[in-house]
Amino acid sequence: MIKIAIIGASGYTGGELLRLLRHHPNMEVTVITSRQNSGKSVLEVFPHLRGAYDDLTFEEPNYADIKGRVHGAFTALPHGASVEAVSVLSMGAAGASAKDSQNNISKDNIMPVVDLSADFRFNNIATYEATYALHTKPNLLEKAVYGLPEMYRDKIKDANIVGNPGCYPTGAILGLYPLLKKGLIKTDGIIVDSKSGVTGAGRVSSPLTHFPEIAEGLHAYKVGNHRHAPEIEENLTTAASKEITITFTPHLIPINRGILTTIYAEIKEETSLDEVLNTFSNIYADEPFVRILPSGVIPNTAWVRGSNFIDIGAVVVEKTKRLVIVTAIDNLVKGAAGQAIQNMNLILGLPEETGLTDLPLFP
Amino acid sequence: MIKIAIIGASGYTGGELLRLLRHHPNMEVTVITSRQNSGKSVLEVFPHLRGAYDDLTFEEPNYADIKGRVHGAFTALPHGASVEAVSVLSMGAAGASAKDSQNNISKDNIMPVVDLSADFRFNNIATYEATYALHTKPNLLEKAVYGLPEMYRDKIKDANIVGNPGCYPTGAILGLYPLLKKGLIKTDGIIVDSKSGVTGAGRVSSPLTHFPEIAEGLHAYKVGNHRHAPEIEENLTTAASKEITITFTPHLIPINRGILTTIYAEIKEETSLDEVLNTFSNIYADEPFVRILPSGVIPNTAWVRGSNFIDIGAVVVEKTKRLVIVTAIDNLVKGAAGQAIQNMNLILGLPEETGLTDLPLFP
Amino acid sequence: MIKIAIIGASGYTGGELLRLLRHHPNMEVTVITSRQNSGKSVLEVFPHLRGAYDDLTFEEPNYADIKGRVHGAFTALPHGASVEAVSVLSMGAAGASAKDSQNNISKDNIMPVVDLSADFRFNNIATYEATYALHTKPNLLEKAVYGLPEMYRDKIKDANIVGNPGCYPTGAILGLYPLLKKGLIKTDGIIVDSKSGVTGAGRVSSPLTHFPEIAEGLHAYKVGNHRHAPEIEENLTTAASKEITITFTPHLIPINRGILTTIYAEIKEETSLDEVLNTFSNIYADEPFVRILPSGVIPNTAWVRGSNFIDIGAVVVEKTKRLVIVTAIDNLVKGAAGQAIQNMNLILGLPEETGLTDLPLFP
Amino acid sequence: MIKIAIIGASGYTGGELLRLLRHHPNMEVTVITSRQNSGKSVLEVFPHLRGAYDDLTFEEPNYADIKGRVHGAFTALPHGASVEAVSVLSMGAAGASAKDSQNNISKDNIMPVVDLSADFRFNNIATYEATYALHTKPNLLEKAVYGLPEMYRDKIKDANIVGNPGCYPTGAILGLYPLLKKGLIKTDGIIVDSKSGVTGAGRVSSPLTHFPEIAEGLHAYKVGNHRHAPEIEENLTTAASKEITITFTPHLIPINRGILTTIYAEIKEETSLDEVLNTFSNIYADEPFVRILPSGVIPNTAWVRGSNFIDIGAVVVEKTKRLVIVTAIDNLVKGAAGQAIQNMNLILGLPEETGLTDLPLFP
Repeated sequence: MIKIAIIGASGYTGGELLRLLRHHPNMEVTVITSRQNSGKSVLEVFPHLRGAYDDLTFEEPNYADIKGRVHGAFTALPHGASVEAVSVLSMGAAGASAKDSQNNISKDNIMPVVDLSADFRFNNIATYEATYALHTKPNLLEKAVYGLPEMYRDKIKDANIVGNPGCYPTGAILGLYPLLKKGLIKTDGIIVDSKSGVTGAGRVSSPLTHFPEIAEGLHAYKVGNHRHAPEIEENLTTAASKEITITFTPHLIPINRGILTTIYAEIKEETSLDEVLNTFSNIYADEPFVRILPSGVIPNTAWVRGSNFIDIGAVVVEKTKRLVIVTAIDNLVKGAAGQAIQNMNLILGLPEETGLTDLPLFP
Repeated sequence: MIKIAIIGASGYTGGELLRLLRHHPNMEVTVITSRQNSGKSVLEVFPHLRGAYDDLTFEEPNYADIKGRVHGAFTALPHGASVEAVSVLSMGAAGASAKDSQNNISKDNIMPVVDLSADFRFNNIATYEATYALHTKPNLLEKAVYGLPEMYRDKIKDANIVGNPGCYPTGAILGLYPLLKKGLIKTDGIIVDSKSGVTGAGRVSSPLTHFPEIAEGLHAYKVGNHRHAPEIEENLTTAASKEITITFTPHLIPINRGILTTIYAEIKEETSLDEVLNTFSNIYADEPFVRILPSGVIPNTAWVRGSNFIDIGAVVVEKTKRLVIVTAIDNLVKGAAGQAIQNMNLILGLPEETGLTDLPLFP
Repeated sequence: MIKIAIIGASGYTGGELLRLLRHHPNMEVTVITSRQNSGKSVLEVFPHLRGAYDDLTFEEPNYADIKGRVHGAFTALPHGASVEAVSVLSMGAAGASAKDSQNNISKDNIMPVVDLSADFRFNNIATYEATYALHTKPNLLEKAVYGLPEMYRDKIKDANIVGNPGCYPTGAILGLYPLLKKGLIKTDGIIVDSKSGVTGAGRVSSPLTHFPEIAEGLHAYKVGNHRHAPEIEENLTTAASKEITITFTPHLIPINRGILTTIYAEIKEETSLDEVLNTFSNIYADEPFVRILPSGVIPNTAWVRGSNFIDIGAVVVEKTKRLVIVTAIDNLVKGAAGQAIQNMNLILGLPEETGLTDLPLFP
Repeated sequence: MIKIAIIGASGYTGGELLRLLRHHPNMEVTVITSRQNSGKSVLEVFPHLRGAYDDLTFEEPNYADIKGRVHGAFTALPHGASVEAVSVLSMGAAGASAKDSQNNISKDNIMPVVDLSADFRFNNIATYEATYALHTKPNLLEKAVYGLPEMYRDKIKDANIVGNPGCYPTGAILGLYPLLKKGLIKTDGIIVDSKSGVTGAGRVSSPLTHFPEIAEGLHAYKVGNHRHAPEIEENLTTAASKEITITFTPHLIPINRGILTTIYAEIKEETSLDEVLNTFSNIYADEPFVRILPSGVIPNTAWVRGSNFIDIGAVVVEKTKRLVIVTAIDNLVKGAAGQAIQNMNLILGLPEETGLTDLPLFP
């Protein structure tokens, strides 16, 4: 078994990693860290996991020590803190390499890390620094790969550090990438209107996520200045091979899980809905987690809950020549923990779907 | 007291009219009809109103008879059925005019009717017929006024038949009208992305609105072909004095009440957010139910729940030159029953706010 | 107008007092305090109230100063803090008495205070101290009256300090008081199983009330040791004229407002459901806010939302000789702010329903 | 692979059987029936299962034909209809026996059927008929076993027809069985106060389960006369070896999944909480799906969502000598489909947990 550490494991993403990895045939979580919950058992922090990890205890994040005890790591810390963790963990000692134990391909004894913060999501360090903060390990950032397998699978297989995509970017980029790549839409004026469940805000309570402030309500936030916009733009730019800017509006919806992304783009004169759907179907033909819905069927977050699927549907509004693309993901799975495992599977040379075949829970 | 009939009173809109009119100092509901609930008392159909209308019973809709017993009517029937009701009710007999009883201004003894269906919302009969069905009383439609007081107050005062706006159109038009009137935005490429609570679907149950199909989920529907789009377009065209088309996507959100409308428009090069907000503030300066939020504050449906307010906020995204306007209403109040009462107040020459001063219920 | 201060006004109870008092014909809120929000305007803390109190600003709680500026006060502070506020505020200076200004009946220039904490809810100081903490003003407690008008109306009229009941006790006591008074049920083995919306936990956020921890879940808490049990027992003991103990289990439900209380008692052999319902109807015959549902109709919290009503229904289970009583209230209205206003109306000699006639908001 | 038919597969229980059996290593669903959806594919009726059963189509329920094509069946029909299906299906032809194919133990070529209706839940036909309707196959009922493995595991192993327990009974019986068996509580006056999510009402829409009628509300229903009470009583009577009657109140909660059952019983003078918890732990020591929570931890339905677990906690209220037991299940899993698979595993001689090891989905 490949021994896995989860750094910063007491949030919702950590809980999902624990849930999903429980029955992974090749990985086993042996180390979990949390400054705040150090010394507590899994079942104190995640009572729903009672019976699954009763002997596992949160420990202080001593990365140098942990590095010697595991073969791979998921880091789920705030940005800034993550880069420090990754810089120590990824510099693996001899014999600690999961790739080594798995398939005798050692890459300088470097331990694979999938990072769920924003610290390794950008190619362009200037964009990272304009959006977040000074990046303390630019050379590590250069080596990292953006963990969207549908766009960067081959690079991910060769990577040791993967920056797992943000939840909003996953839903937005996968809905646009094939169309931009094939030039079916105009590249100006793209609108991304996203609606997210509240787990996207993390597990740390705040006045803004107090139950009565959210329930039976609905609002937009950070209109035009959410940090996920530059992340989306960088990858759409790659897809289109030209500079793309978007208008991005996130909304908070009183549900736990799910992001519905409604995307508006001007369709080229000669493009039909059939061509759009065929393009999606072709480019995503071998993708295990992308489901293209037929004409007339629009995604619902309830249809992907708990699973690693992304559902994609599209409509052409003839009168205005607008293409409306709708995507649905579970923000904690395809938008976080599930995609992270998908990435780790790729790094480790495992079948990509391993441990991720649970069907959605509906209702 | 002005005696009022509510035709088709057993839905959510009927319940709201009863709730709001209970303490209206000038109107009294004396007749309620429902084919399905004929013979039942109010408290059987609306247990929350126990104590308020215990002697009032739903009756069969005999319009000729009802016409002689009331001074005004709200009609809340499906389209097609409504036009028939209005055609009989509005042809009031001598002495039955509410305007007469109120202020000695009789307009040919015609009884005022505010219709909550789509039957009297269109100026252009061709648009109505393309969107809904053959209109059986075109001459009545010509006399009707669209009941959006912020745009058509003077006409409403002189009207006898008012077509109460749809819920989505109320949220969309009021967020765009001042900007189009003043030419602050480009008229092409306007996107209206609306999110509605489930009461917007009415009180009749269906597999689509069964609780578990909706709760913890989120989806778009009728993308690009919802019937409210032409209604929005007709009024935006009036506002802009040029043909406007929009791309309109409604979404269903697991809350009871509230519509949040996120509108995207290309802002003219020279326009600033200040100018946008000032334009809203100036044009809506005397509006009792429009609240313009200051820069940095974005509407939340929870802040208008149960009230007749519409909250409007705006953000300019400099990089893409997009203006994002967000509006919030309670779809059953400003989006239906409250606005209907506002219209009836105007027709009857009453102060416009009468009976509508309840503050929002939060949380 | 009677000038009113709300001490500790930035919570949900404060918001409800502001909402309900806005249209009260005799009272006007002129002072609001909050240590945390001192200096902020109402619309910053309660955006839903925009337009209603825009000139009113939260101030530091300087009770000696406030006392001279108002005629009455609602105190909504944590227990312990409340007793200090009340002790200063209730010792009114000459000329400051609301009763005086209202009807020339001055009671030693003492200012009326309705306290929404637990500090004045107990007759028995030992019970208070065993349940909460040392009581620093026992002599004030002696003068205070428990603010449940349906049981103590006459005393409340003569009081200056009223301890407004807890939310759970309101729903529990009103469902049992007539039956214990008339001896229709056995006094042993009473079970009170209550289900509350999350606003009952207040507005201060905590990990326990973070949206995702609550939504789509359901749990009991403080089973058998909730502080409201002794408050219920003290008043049931009064009703029965003998010592009553109960088993009380509160549950947290993912809704905003509403407490449903399901009460189980052994019915006396000879008692019928009719007798139970008649007893409720007779004892509560003149109560403006108690609605007794007919046989076969069971309360729903949705039917009282936003209103000061309590709905009561009952069923007899013949096989087990158990009477099941179900009551529903809005915990923020009849369970807090509404009842507080009802009490203040009584103290001030105003009609009891003044300002409290809003009908429930459904759905 | 053991070929499985699901009869009446288009409801929520059918959807859960499909979800859970997808990765069952020994069973494969090859036939699904639905009168209403005959001819439709799985992904039309269950869009969340897209990709998993795309070639499987709902067919008309021709039991004689189906019998020859599968080795076992789950029947999920309304009571009355189920007994007819089971009577045909269970009379298997030669060679069709799953037991045979599995382990060469043929029992007269009878095909195993787990029935999810009420038709095979009662030992006492008179109770069934008093509660539901005339039973048309009393001799089949005699052969059936009640499918609660924790009580009747050995009988289930030998059965061919299993009556899968109701959702409420599962939560209630498992919370009481060890205590009654060991005589730790008094047998009179047991109260079962249950709170259920709305999927318990099935997938067929009705005015009562229309989203806005349920959301933000809370009510009891069928107080004292719900059909699950006799089912609970029959099994508690078995557990106690004496006649038990209960007072049972179900409540409807605005969540999708989960039943929380709060049980009140008078504890015997000498019994302690430790003894209660130890008794649970001992009797359920080898149960794979029962989790006994330690003193001070109370179950939450969110901790079992999507899983086959039942969580059980208990509190003793010393003052009233009441034991409060709280249990939590997912009504669609341990309360329906999961338990049905658990039963089928037992009948077929498979490890009981097969296909049921998914961890709960939280949040």
